[in-house]
Amino acid sequence: MTVSPFDHPYLSGLLGDEEMAELFSAAAELEAMLAFEVALARAEAAEGVIPLSAAEAIAEAAHQFSPDVAVLRQATARDGVVVPEFVRQLRQVVGGEAAAHVHFGATSQDVIDSALMLRLTRVAVILSHRLGAIVDELNELDARHGGRVLMGRTRMQAAIEISVADRIAAWKQPLERHIEELGLAIEQRFPVQFGGAAGTLDRFDDRGPALRTLLADALGLADVAQWHSQRDRIATFGSLLSLITGSLGKLGQDIALMAQDGSEIVLSGGGASSAMAHKHNPVSAEALVTLARFNATALAGLHQSLVHEQERSGSAWTLEWMLLPQMAVAAGSATRLAGAVVRSIEDIGSVR
Amino acid sequence: MTVSPFDHPYLSGLLGDEEMAELFSAAAELEAMLAFEVALARAEAAEGVIPLSAAEAIAEAAHQFSPDVAVLRQATARDGVVVPEFVRQLRQVVGGEAAAHVHFGATSQDVIDSALMLRLTRVAVILSHRLGAIVDELNELDARHGGRVLMGRTRMQAAIEISVADRIAAWKQPLERHIEELGLAIEQRFPVQFGGAAGTLDRFDDRGPALRTLLADALGLADVAQWHSQRDRIATFGSLLSLITGSLGKLGQDIALMAQDGSEIVLSGGGASSAMAHKHNPVSAEALVTLARFNATALAGLHQSLVHEQERSGSAWTLEWMLLPQMAVAAGSATRLAGAVVRSIEDIGSVR
Amino acid sequence: MTVSPFDHPYLSGLLGDEEMAELFSAAAELEAMLAFEVALARAEAAEGVIPLSAAEAIAEAAHQFSPDVAVLRQATARDGVVVPEFVRQLRQVVGGEAAAHVHFGATSQDVIDSALMLRLTRVAVILSHRLGAIVDELNELDARHGGRVLMGRTRMQAAIEISVADRIAAWKQPLERHIEELGLAIEQRFPVQFGGAAGTLDRFDDRGPALRTLLADALGLADVAQWHSQRDRIATFGSLLSLITGSLGKLGQDIALMAQDGSEIVLSGGGASSAMAHKHNPVSAEALVTLARFNATALAGLHQSLVHEQERSGSAWTLEWMLLPQMAVAAGSATRLAGAVVRSIEDIGSVR
Amino acid sequence: MTVSPFDHPYLSGLLGDEEMAELFSAAAELEAMLAFEVALARAEAAEGVIPLSAAEAIAEAAHQFSPDVAVLRQATARDGVVVPEFVRQLRQVVGGEAAAHVHFGATSQDVIDSALMLRLTRVAVILSHRLGAIVDELNELDARHGGRVLMGRTRMQAAIEISVADRIAAWKQPLERHIEELGLAIEQRFPVQFGGAAGTLDRFDDRGPALRTLLADALGLADVAQWHSQRDRIATFGSLLSLITGSLGKLGQDIALMAQDGSEIVLSGGGASSAMAHKHNPVSAEALVTLARFNATALAGLHQSLVHEQERSGSAWTLEWMLLPQMAVAAGSATRLAGAVVRSIEDIGSVR
Repeated sequence: MTVSPFDHPYLSGLLGDEEMAELFSAAAELEAMLAFEVALARAEAAEGVIPLSAAEAIAEAAHQFSPDVAVLRQATARDGVVVPEFVRQLRQVVGGEAAAHVHFGATSQDVIDSALMLRLTRVAVILSHRLGAIVDELNELDARHGGRVLMGRTRMQAAIEISVADRIAAWKQPLERHIEELGLAIEQRFPVQFGGAAGTLDRFDDRGPALRTLLADALGLADVAQWHSQRDRIATFGSLLSLITGSLGKLGQDIALMAQDGSEIVLSGGGASSAMAHKHNPVSAEALVTLARFNATALAGLHQSLVHEQERSGSAWTLEWMLLPQMAVAAGSATRLAGAVVRSIEDIGSVR
Repeated sequence: MTVSPFDHPYLSGLLGDEEMAELFSAAAELEAMLAFEVALARAEAAEGVIPLSAAEAIAEAAHQFSPDVAVLRQATARDGVVVPEFVRQLRQVVGGEAAAHVHFGATSQDVIDSALMLRLTRVAVILSHRLGAIVDELNELDARHGGRVLMGRTRMQAAIEISVADRIAAWKQPLERHIEELGLAIEQRFPVQFGGAAGTLDRFDDRGPALRTLLADALGLADVAQWHSQRDRIATFGSLLSLITGSLGKLGQDIALMAQDGSEIVLSGGGASSAMAHKHNPVSAEALVTLARFNATALAGLHQSLVHEQERSGSAWTLEWMLLPQMAVAAGSATRLAGAVVRSIEDIGSVR
Repeated sequence: MTVSPFDHPYLSGLLGDEEMAELFSAAAELEAMLAFEVALARAEAAEGVIPLSAAEAIAEAAHQFSPDVAVLRQATARDGVVVPEFVRQLRQVVGGEAAAHVHFGATSQDVIDSALMLRLTRVAVILSHRLGAIVDELNELDARHGGRVLMGRTRMQAAIEISVADRIAAWKQPLERHIEELGLAIEQRFPVQFGGAAGTLDRFDDRGPALRTLLADALGLADVAQWHSQRDRIATFGSLLSLITGSLGKLGQDIALMAQDGSEIVLSGGGASSAMAHKHNPVSAEALVTLARFNATALAGLHQSLVHEQERSGSAWTLEWMLLPQMAVAAGSATRLAGAVVRSIEDIGSVR
Repeated sequence: MTVSPFDHPYLSGLLGDEEMAELFSAAAELEAMLAFEVALARAEAAEGVIPLSAAEAIAEAAHQFSPDVAVLRQATARDGVVVPEFVRQLRQVVGGEAAAHVHFGATSQDVIDSALMLRLTRVAVILSHRLGAIVDELNELDARHGGRVLMGRTRMQAAIEISVADRIAAWKQPLERHIEELGLAIEQRFPVQFGGAAGTLDRFDDRGPALRTLLADALGLADVAQWHSQRDRIATFGSLLSLITGSLGKLGQDIALMAQDGSEIVLSGGGASSAMAHKHNPVSAEALVTLARFNATALAGLHQSLVHEQERSGSAWTLEWMLLPQMAVAAGSATRLAGAVVRSIEDIGSVR
């Protein structure tokens, strides 16, 4: 089954991003969930909520745990979330008295949302790094050809001459703002989610906050009050993903327009046609526009999910799962493609 | 790589649909593309455009053709579409003089769009069949419990009593309209796409239309003028997919609301919670709302693709690939879940 | 207050459409609502539900009725819909015993939705007429210049030569399909909505359906079962509006691209720049793209409204009000602009 | 013409916001544009680009300038933007030699975008102030009733008891983050746009940056490099508007759900029904959901506008005009309604 181009055996060559997609694989999610359960058990042991031996047994079991994915699948269909069955299987591996201490006081959303935050941290780091590389490439291009001239175009009509440096600046400056925003998110750390059944940490008396601090520290996440029905952080990160694809979509659109008759830009490579041997299509530039429009579209759904009723909305939460990973991979693909497009620029503008 | 829930090892248990997803697998696309190339060769042989022996060689080769997917992937990254490399590999298998007759006079979009139409035909048949089954289930429910009473609710407030039959009618009637619309699409057949490099069948003199008729007939598609830059049919079908998920989303939302305190509806099964053993969550009903909102969101992107510039827009066309298969599978999943939800109704309304 | 460009003192010159906007004015809605109340009273009198004299008094009062809009505004803020206060004011004008017979057995949604259908009928007629005129203009352009050549362009690159007729066909054929779809909607008539408080015509015993037939006939609407919580017809019409703007957006995008260097198309008129006296911007062509993207965007919201919970969803219904009128006016503006753009074509393509 | 509910004579009572809508009136835009032209002239005089007397004449004329809106409307239809005609009329009022110094070296986008930023500054201040008031109301509610109990609900099913304070915190905390974000935007100031014909300040040699600094200071805007084809700031602000409506939509949805049977919350007021006298509909709570879904929908269009080709995209820029003002007013309406809803809470939860 390969419905999404991001997962598709050959379309992923164009639209996918292996490094980013890997973060949203089942394996990566299960690993992050295990990390949560182990960190939780250790925090609970440290606070005396569960025996130290239980935490050790859980950490030990996590090493050997190889979930039965077919059963996880059936259970997810029934429960709407993988966690109950995941916990059941993990408890089976832990065994003995310690089994009952697995996932103690936590709820599905704690595991899923915190496991997501661990991966979004990686997403932010990767995007920041790649956008930095694109900015570097643009700076080099500027150093090489910035002094050349281009016809500036407004409303798709020749306006006045500008320099290649002017056009490059319009591509680069938004990326620098996105890098800054990503850096801020990384620096502040993505937030741990820990609230228990209905967000009140009801099983921990007054030890809840201390537990959460330990848990957040162990996972490298920010220690913040539970936010399971407050999805603005998710929507904000989605907006940033769409800003990135949008800014790179502008770059792609500009390059596709410049490549129209070959006089303003020369790209190496380019796609073949099954009907016309002479063509060298600016495929990657066009794909950048596609990814921009895809993320702009998906962002609307992510913002619909802000209407997250009561203590947990199954429908709004699940909608995030359908959109956010694809948006992250789209942003990853866009950075991959944009880097390649910029590197493929052999010539741009004309000598003054 | 499993970015989309539709392709995901365990989330697909909740949100996926195997029968529908199968239609959008790489294997199914390649098979439909092969069917196109074979039918094209036969039509061209019948019209004397290529030798009969070439058509036979192509049909023969198609039986044994097992494309190298890794190379298809690389080529798709370069060409933006799988067809040039697919044709190259197919020609290699055909060999000899016949090789040059593969894909003669056709272009990538002819293959991809016609191959899509073959699969959308199946999508329509499956959805029509499943919606019919849901209508049957609703009719049975009506026969059993239609005479009972429910509190009618407007603006989420008690209004006046209605019958269970009234509520069921509100769920059923839109589905009947969707079945009618699907039936119409099936009856008129989905359209073949055949235009050559720029849509003008430039390689065929005046035999183009006759070829197209033969091709359409062989594929079971409607014989219509080429439409490669006219994407309204795609957008229209996408709207129908979203209507289906939307109408089932209303059913799901209603059932989730009725299930709130257990007095208006009793469902068998229901999802477990990792934190609260007493819960029986109406997971499938909620997922119907999710799928409705997902397709409503994606539809905007499909309609953005109507701005399909010139003879072929790489960016607009590719955006369709990112959205339409997922929308079809979402509609498939919604019919699967809605059937299950309706069958799970053990009790509804109260005796008058 | 002029938040929307469609209502704006000067932006409406570019983006608005007076004929279409008029249909969504408060005056037009109130008039259609009055028509509903009068037709309802007459039908009820004919069926013996209310006295004939009451129906006459109501019809009479409707002629002189001039609602207090300031009070309607306050009441809409409170009630979420204008109808309760509208009925109260109308009853006051009717006076006497007949007053109580105003709006008998109907509910707000009956009035609002039926009044909308009256206006959507006009929308469909206007769009059909205007699209027909655009098709005529395109046919004339084809007769004049169809034989000339254009460079066909795929993926924004020169492909092979096509004729101007080929490009015109790609613009025209979708419009012909939209005209056919509009014609079908007009022929089948838009549906009356009549259901009473919770859609069950609870105040009429078995006379409900006969009343509805009379009401529908009087209003020129189709006599169909109540559909107040089944919004697929609204979403379907919205899709058609977006198809229209999308198809015209493709025409606009193509023309803006052809106008880039002035060699492929010559347009009369064109917009001035505040900074560059030499520019003649293809403003209307660009606005067609804008309107296409606007409607594609709004369509997602209209499809979100399909999740219309229970017997009446205040939130989903109100969302339709925010989107559908704007979509209709956008389609109106697009037909207006497209006609002007096509008429402004002074030259296109080159002599073979 | 009153297509948008925000501009509608009676629907604006429910959905509009007078204070916010005023900022997007033609009068407010023209005033902000005039402020730009006056500040520009003064900056240019200070830098010796134009005579001081010209700047004085322009400032003087601005006081008496009363544009002919009918002509502005016609010109906007032709030019795609109001500025050329606005400048022409202003020059006429200025008269003499000074006339030629009006708008010297600036372009339409400088005026429109800077004039927008002046108004977005006000939008941010108003929203921040109102959200602060809602937080205060929620704090008071918490002080009064925070200790009471509510049934926590996950997946629309009873979960475990929570306190009223827990639910209030889930409403309040996102608002506090939005206030912080608004505060940051206000503190950093919204950016001036000043670039000239193609963004290069081509008429000013090396005095461009100094001019821009003077201009930004005079207008109270941030002095940043021109950004006319970099629309990420617009999209970012749109995201914030949608976050605000989304967070308030969650509050509205929760309250509508709590009000279902009257046992969890008691609201004063409430809407009347035209069919059922006993009803008190939670109209404002529902409208909050509507506004959230409206802005989530519109945000997709704003992000589509990030693909802003070359030095100025007529189509992408115009799309912003169709969406951003409505999103701002939707956010205004949501803050207005949410304040009213919270104030209308007479009772909430039950005594422990």
